[in-house]
Amino acid sequence: MSLALDEAAQDLLFREARTAHTFTDEPVTDEQVRTVYDLVKYAPTAFNQCPLRITLVRSAQARARLVRHMAPGNRAKTAAAPLVAVLSADNEFHEELPRLLPHFPQAKDLIYAERPVREASALLNTALQVAYFIIGVRAAGLAAGPMSGFDAAAVRKEFLDDDHTPLVVLALGRPGPDAFRARGPRLDADEVITTV
Amino acid sequence: MSLALDEAAQDLLFREARTAHTFTDEPVTDEQVRTVYDLVKYAPTAFNQCPLRITLVRSAQARARLVRHMAPGNRAKTAAAPLVAVLSADNEFHEELPRLLPHFPQAKDLIYAERPVREASALLNTALQVAYFIIGVRAAGLAAGPMSGFDAAAVRKEFLDDDHTPLVVLALGRPGPDAFRARGPRLDADEVITTV
Repeated sequence: MSLALDEAAQDLLFREARTAHTFTDEPVTDEQVRTVYDLVKYAPTAFNQCPLRITLVRSAQARARLVRHMAPGNRAKTAAAPLVAVLSADNEFHEELPRLLPHFPQAKDLIYAERPVREASALLNTALQVAYFIIGVRAAGLAAGPMSGFDAAAVRKEFLDDDHTPLVVLALGRPGPDAFRARGPRLDADEVITTV
Repeated sequence: MSLALDEAAQDLLFREARTAHTFTDEPVTDEQVRTVYDLVKYAPTAFNQCPLRITLVRSAQARARLVRHMAPGNRAKTAAAPLVAVLSADNEFHEELPRLLPHFPQAKDLIYAERPVREASALLNTALQVAYFIIGVRAAGLAAGPMSGFDAAAVRKEFLDDDHTPLVVLALGRPGPDAFRARGPRLDADEVITTV
């Protein structure tokens, strides 16, 4: 069966795209990040809550502060990538809902009045947006290096506030020497899909 | 700035793709689902854990059991879509890690020995895979209708077991009459991206 998406795009986004572990020195510009965001922002979240927030860690001093909180295996890559972004959930996303969800502005108070409900929902929907963003980085011809191994409480304290939860630290750039590990096997469709 | 991904593919996956609320009767085949899965399975998860599991709710009896547990606003769509899938996290994903992560098989016991650690990590990484799958459904030329409004405990009991957590129920098919609501506004890049 063939997909509507052409083979070259399938390769770019999924089959040939790989998680990079080293990068060249070529900068990643704010314009590139905005272009990626302006594409992937359209992908769906529950009640259009759009909870993803992106912190670009650009200054040398900020980068050093971030590296300290990464798991040891992620430090070299975090230090060396041309750009690193902290992708976090805004647990107070409901404040924007009257504007984002004009056909049901009551969602702010009817559904998301309680903080634990917001935190759980922001976690799920931010993770969706993180994945859209990774696909968008690949759509820009860049490689992404998503990392979840870091001290989340420390990163929150260093760069965010109590209303934001960091989910993923993402290295971005052009792949450098020996950027790719051997790709691990994936589960077969038969192992993942069942029918009832 | 232009992306490496061509404009038609950008439109197909993000700009023109929309969450569908009604569908035609055209069936969605197992082959289509497998083709989508076989593309998006390559997108990254932490330590290649691949925790997403897909339950296709095909029989009329199973569909009726699922509809009962959906939020009222999601019932008609869940009942009428040509195919509905329960997308869940396998909290025992670590059992497959020695095979999926051959360069670091010790991850199974060193990192994921404790169930709460696995549950938190499976939640994040399954959500990433849910988003990849939504993009893949769009790549197949189909519309996706992701829903998080359902009784998760009841859906788990009905279709899964204690080791699996349902995250999203996904309707799939070709858009039917009045399938699309007006698209809500998105946050501007300036509202989402900050630099340190």
